[in-house]
Amino acid sequence: MNFRLVFKLTGKVLLVAAAAMLIPMAVSLLYGESPLPFLLSIGLTGVVGLLLSRIRSNDHFFPREGFFAVALIWLLVGAFGALPFFFCGRMYPELGLFTSYVDCFFESVSGFTTTGASILTAIEPLPRGILFWRSFVHWLGGMGVLILTIALLPGLGGRTLHLMKAESPGPVVSKLVPKTSQSSKILYGIYCVLTATQVVCLKLAGMPWYDSIVHAFATAGTGGFSTRNLSVAAYQSPAIEIIITVFMLLFSVNFALYFLLLCGKVRQVLKSDELRFFLGLVAVSIVLIAINIAHMYATPGESVRHAAFQVASIISTTGFASTDFNLWPEFSRVLLVLLMFVGACAGSTGGAIKCSRVLLLCKCIRREIRQVVHPRVVNVVKLDGRVVEEPALRSVLIFFAAYIAITLGGTLIVALDNFSFGTTFTAVVSCIGNVGPGLEMVGPMGNYAAFSHLSKIVLSLCMILGRLEVLPILVLFSTSAWKRS
Amino acid sequence: MNFRLVFKLTGKVLLVAAAAMLIPMAVSLLYGESPLPFLLSIGLTGVVGLLLSRIRSNDHFFPREGFFAVALIWLLVGAFGALPFFFCGRMYPELGLFTSYVDCFFESVSGFTTTGASILTAIEPLPRGILFWRSFVHWLGGMGVLILTIALLPGLGGRTLHLMKAESPGPVVSKLVPKTSQSSKILYGIYCVLTATQVVCLKLAGMPWYDSIVHAFATAGTGGFSTRNLSVAAYQSPAIEIIITVFMLLFSVNFALYFLLLCGKVRQVLKSDELRFFLGLVAVSIVLIAINIAHMYATPGESVRHAAFQVASIISTTGFASTDFNLWPEFSRVLLVLLMFVGACAGSTGGAIKCSRVLLLCKCIRREIRQVVHPRVVNVVKLDGRVVEEPALRSVLIFFAAYIAITLGGTLIVALDNFSFGTTFTAVVSCIGNVGPGLEMVGPMGNYAAFSHLSKIVLSLCMILGRLEVLPILVLFSTSAWKRS
Repeated sequence: MNFRLVFKLTGKVLLVAAAAMLIPMAVSLLYGESPLPFLLSIGLTGVVGLLLSRIRSNDHFFPREGFFAVALIWLLVGAFGALPFFFCGRMYPELGLFTSYVDCFFESVSGFTTTGASILTAIEPLPRGILFWRSFVHWLGGMGVLILTIALLPGLGGRTLHLMKAESPGPVVSKLVPKTSQSSKILYGIYCVLTATQVVCLKLAGMPWYDSIVHAFATAGTGGFSTRNLSVAAYQSPAIEIIITVFMLLFSVNFALYFLLLCGKVRQVLKSDELRFFLGLVAVSIVLIAINIAHMYATPGESVRHAAFQVASIISTTGFASTDFNLWPEFSRVLLVLLMFVGACAGSTGGAIKCSRVLLLCKCIRREIRQVVHPRVVNVVKLDGRVVEEPALRSVLIFFAAYIAITLGGTLIVALDNFSFGTTFTAVVSCIGNVGPGLEMVGPMGNYAAFSHLSKIVLSLCMILGRLEVLPILVLFSTSAWKRS
Repeated sequence: MNFRLVFKLTGKVLLVAAAAMLIPMAVSLLYGESPLPFLLSIGLTGVVGLLLSRIRSNDHFFPREGFFAVALIWLLVGAFGALPFFFCGRMYPELGLFTSYVDCFFESVSGFTTTGASILTAIEPLPRGILFWRSFVHWLGGMGVLILTIALLPGLGGRTLHLMKAESPGPVVSKLVPKTSQSSKILYGIYCVLTATQVVCLKLAGMPWYDSIVHAFATAGTGGFSTRNLSVAAYQSPAIEIIITVFMLLFSVNFALYFLLLCGKVRQVLKSDELRFFLGLVAVSIVLIAINIAHMYATPGESVRHAAFQVASIISTTGFASTDFNLWPEFSRVLLVLLMFVGACAGSTGGAIKCSRVLLLCKCIRREIRQVVHPRVVNVVKLDGRVVEEPALRSVLIFFAAYIAITLGGTLIVALDNFSFGTTFTAVVSCIGNVGPGLEMVGPMGNYAAFSHLSKIVLSLCMILGRLEVLPILVLFSTSAWKRS
């Protein structure tokens, strides 16, 4: 393992993180708040980043270095991104928030991984600069995911190309244009334009500029941190709810499809199996939930609006809430938990298993059944009209097994806190899927404050595992990866 | 599809079922109870069985006919096995039990699939003949599982051989002796001898003969129906609890290993990866739970005894209870739920995913990680020192995906009854794993009476799906299987 190069890379990313903290510091100054939490954080992060980035190393960079670097970067960025929260907690002890570093780490990791699970029991009393940072890391994290899946991974050799294929077997993202660096620029462009559009829409719907920007960041990264205790429900505005519903869905779609749209290839976009599966699932879920909750709301329109918002929020793994779905009938609640497993489309900022993988799993099972019925017919699994090769299918199946195994294992450890089964299980499902809210105690109007430090660390690791699609973090636990090469 | 042959086979099995009902009828007469419920059931089952078995057909028997027959046999045996309960409910309406046919079907399927989930709110008031039948079907079901995995499946061609391999990749069961019919005779011999031994042990420990026989049947089939409301806890006898613990574990082991033992191949038995994994998992679980529940019991010995009983009961998928584990801390409860997923060893009468599959899943994940670290090294997955081939691994992975998908889908439908998440989810996990008890409302001292008819039917289907290892039942839902050949 080429540790020197890995640390050097990590150092460079920390410098970027330190630079990113300048923006919320500016927001703090704008609102007349103390910039001290950010100044201290920028100093610490900058110094460590500078020291690490000056390490001399050779250029040997193989897949395992790539996975290792990715895992380490997310862990350290989460750790240093927690500093503004930590210093804020020290500066305003009367708030009783961010009292321990573990809480800050949880909140920061939840931000960067675009999860949106919070340990805050009250959000409104916090300084505006801190709340800006909290949602800004969603946006950075969402961008990081794009870097990971589009710019970094294809450069890491054949093995990760397999991963890429498994993840987005449709129009392969890196093939938008010959150069990956150019591809990623195009995708960032789309990301920024969509975010800006949402800011304007929210402003027009009556949100203040600050709230619009913060909520647009949280939507773009499919994160879900709001500036209000009651999340989006606080605004009591159907227009705002509808705008956010639409943008949550827009940010759940494979970004490569937007590029195809820009190139005028509308047909190819409409033929995408994953998009169809995603939209179909969204539509069916909205109808089922709207019927199931119809008795709770005044008009069918209101039921549909709330059903649509919550379905979009959960399947996009954002986690905003327009109402407390924890009070809904069990059928709607379980359906939302199932959507937490499914997640958004590959190549989007959303998390969880991803629609393409779920679709491939269904196709694998269907093929197995067909082979029982017609054992001599050779069956292949196709996506977007193209055959998906066996190694890619195997990767999907193993990913699913590992995902479920980690979910169950995480549930066991978090169970040590002795909360109900519903709370424990859905907390883990929600964190590994980068969703945010779960059921019961961790419902959309609840929070993760009551968990022990151990559980908060385990849940933070689940978020990173989910965000990095499991394998890179598991590599960290493999003894052979730690040997020097 | 050769429907005629499938119906003919089903008819023959129904005749066997009718004959089997003679035994509980004899018990009824012995205890001076009315034999009417059994007489009517034998008449109905016998007539239908006779009519079906007289259907003329050709001999074309392919894998799809095999899967179809197996699925239909279990459905119909469950349906006809429910008749004694149904007529009993009509004869004794004052008991308020077995009031609807769906309840009787649930109880019968729960018996045959060796699940042990009950809709009975009171067990003791029922006639002894009926309670005997209830546990006797466990024993028959356990035997049926042996028939399926050992005698019937290998005759169905290459595809099912793959299934067999995936299920018991260790010492392949059908290769005990060249002839499968002889193999099954040997295994039935072991089954009967073990059952008889348990009856004698329980009698010596102070149980009446009737109770000993009924509990031995329920242990042998890893079913879990007791003659007492409080299950084994009613006897308040450590000796009985220890005997049942030991036998639950004995019936969870691959029966082929007993054959190897009889042949003096002790070394080969001790080298079995699945056995080691199973025993290791049991030991670790007992220790963890004993520590977790230590504060609830007077002595460490008592904690260990209860931990061991419950772990053996759940991992063997029996479902007896020596104490109400629903009152244990959440960690112990979740650990038991995880064991509900794992289940017993392949080639035993136990259910769920099976230890060998879980072991192979772990090995697949570990291999995937290793290939990230060393992409150029070819890694194979081994079990008992032999390489497991890729199609077998793929079957295991797809089985797991289908198993989880059905569990989650079942949870969604059962959620329509609006019970808590813990109740809904663990009811489905317990039923598909053929365990019996779950958590909260369906805990070891609870029952499934409160569920709607729809949920009871879905849970019954889950039991059959779990028992038949998912695929055969899914074949029934495949349109191409229904076409005439």
